[in-house]
Amino acid sequence: MDLAAWLRLTLVPGVGGETQRTLLKAFGLPEAIFAAGPAALAGVVGNDLATGLLRHDCAADIDAAMAWAAQPGNRLLTLADTEYPQSLLGASDPPPLLYAKGRIELLNRPALAIVGSRNATAQGRRDAEAFARALGDAGLCIVSGLALGIDGAAHRGALTSAAGTIAVIGTGADRLYPARNEALARDIVENGVVISEFPLGTPALAGNFPRRNRIIAGLALGCLVVEAAPKSGSLITARLAAEAGREVFAIPGSIHSPLSHGCHQLIRQGAKLVETARDVLEELRWEVSGVDAAAPVPGGGSDGAGEAQVLASLGDTPSSLESLAERSGLTPAELLAILLPMELAGRIAQLPGGLYQRLR
Amino acid sequence: MDLAAWLRLTLVPGVGGETQRTLLKAFGLPEAIFAAGPAALAGVVGNDLATGLLRHDCAADIDAAMAWAAQPGNRLLTLADTEYPQSLLGASDPPPLLYAKGRIELLNRPALAIVGSRNATAQGRRDAEAFARALGDAGLCIVSGLALGIDGAAHRGALTSAAGTIAVIGTGADRLYPARNEALARDIVENGVVISEFPLGTPALAGNFPRRNRIIAGLALGCLVVEAAPKSGSLITARLAAEAGREVFAIPGSIHSPLSHGCHQLIRQGAKLVETARDVLEELRWEVSGVDAAAPVPGGGSDGAGEAQVLASLGDTPSSLESLAERSGLTPAELLAILLPMELAGRIAQLPGGLYQRLR
Repeated sequence: MDLAAWLRLTLVPGVGGETQRTLLKAFGLPEAIFAAGPAALAGVVGNDLATGLLRHDCAADIDAAMAWAAQPGNRLLTLADTEYPQSLLGASDPPPLLYAKGRIELLNRPALAIVGSRNATAQGRRDAEAFARALGDAGLCIVSGLALGIDGAAHRGALTSAAGTIAVIGTGADRLYPARNEALARDIVENGVVISEFPLGTPALAGNFPRRNRIIAGLALGCLVVEAAPKSGSLITARLAAEAGREVFAIPGSIHSPLSHGCHQLIRQGAKLVETARDVLEELRWEVSGVDAAAPVPGGGSDGAGEAQVLASLGDTPSSLESLAERSGLTPAELLAILLPMELAGRIAQLPGGLYQRLR
Repeated sequence: MDLAAWLRLTLVPGVGGETQRTLLKAFGLPEAIFAAGPAALAGVVGNDLATGLLRHDCAADIDAAMAWAAQPGNRLLTLADTEYPQSLLGASDPPPLLYAKGRIELLNRPALAIVGSRNATAQGRRDAEAFARALGDAGLCIVSGLALGIDGAAHRGALTSAAGTIAVIGTGADRLYPARNEALARDIVENGVVISEFPLGTPALAGNFPRRNRIIAGLALGCLVVEAAPKSGSLITARLAAEAGREVFAIPGSIHSPLSHGCHQLIRQGAKLVETARDVLEELRWEVSGVDAAAPVPGGGSDGAGEAQVLASLGDTPSSLESLAERSGLTPAELLAILLPMELAGRIAQLPGGLYQRLR
């Protein structure tokens, strides 16, 4: 069965995301990989990995994952699924398989990441919650990492808005971490969605959190850092967001607060200083292009200035985000803010490889 | 007498700075202006101003100003005086006459402006004082406007450092304003210098403060804004500083503090976000080029990398700040930080018109 092959591909120890994507590129779907035989596999990934792939017995793990996916609200999303978050496809390293719990439709909504320190101040947590609520009310789904401090406050604020929230976790989707956020996690599963790229049972390992941060950055049009110490994980997320062409926003604070120093560092490096949710929306040109996306997807939808511009840039052949950016003069973040609602409204489609195509 | 002619030129009602400079340009020194006769004057500034200049009786005002200047510590500085602040000569509108009380030698030291709100918070005042002290200890003379709040705190901090402080006031030099800063003003006259371009007796008029701010900006290598409300006078000073090629620095603060919003606005417009005095010094490349200037002027002095670069750019003909900037790749602020100590050490001279020349 197809899904079992996806699981098998991702559950062999030592076969990481890069190898998985190399194999998918060479052979197509996972079933074709396992049908290709040892010589063909070895030709692509070398003898050791080929042997591991074919010999490793994942049957029990696959059964467990299938059983998990059969529970109400749980889903396995592969790169080939239409429900897979399209915003991740433009990145160089989308996870081949995502474990999701909750409202998976949120994964293709326009989103904004809000991240920050685990040891946030009370004011920082209040700010995170208020920004999340206001940006959620404006139609942006709020992405964060379910950590204590800023992350949790951002999820809480988003849960009171209409647009929902996405928690990207660095543990298995059956292990909601940290324990102190268990009630929040249950609330997110009910009213938002929790996703993980890590196999079930994966414990909290420091090495996995930077990979988790990459997903947070990739899912969102921009990344807002509320409070962060210098050299903290939030700054990594912000850097990943910038590298992926997303906008980075930072909230300033007192020069005497160590948790503002990371934000100040980002601002000096070019992040947008923001005082209000409106500052974020204006920078994303959200009023122009994105308000429609907050409402349920209509049959037709309005054809705003941004959409007309993108349709003109698209022409009749599938185009990458990069070439669209070049032709339209818009940033990748601005483009994504326009493309996602267009896709939801069925006016364009995203093809494998991150290419966009007009539908009518 | 020469000084009397300078006073006469600047004491005629209706004859502003621009007219004064037009006349100086046309006729040279003030004595030549008044010797030129009505027809020649009218040819340059029109009939009405020419008549006013020749007919207005300034004798009593001139006597009073000469008597003021004869008191210990008081000085009148004309554009032609070598003690006139050389940093103002590069601007388009240096005041032809300055009234100074105190240590006029400070007017040609490398300086940094620190400005901000009259209604500053206690933390803002502490920050202004601490930055002024640290930057003063690094050898920068601190320029401010003797107002309540940030200005006063900056002067106080500077007075505890070795480099001294300059108060630029918007009233006559015989009217130290505001009254609540009288003790501070006396301290500055003793250990720093107070200057004004306004005739003796000029009361506090709202219209004069922007002109005062222009002098603050012009005297300094850069302008640090500590706390400022949007649309406040401090932002005007910062804008004037930026227009004069000076660096602008701003201290961030809580998004919930209205007095940080002006600073945040400046940062969004390109001002450097600073958390420490070191940030300011690094931006000014002060460690490289300026530390010598803090010490008493030596006979020779070190010939640092910045100086060598400037000397090479200077060549053998007098050069303007603009052409030096073009040739050296340094900003005007960086250049001034290098030029001033070189001038103090007698290695270069500044000629009228803001041209710089090598001396040896």
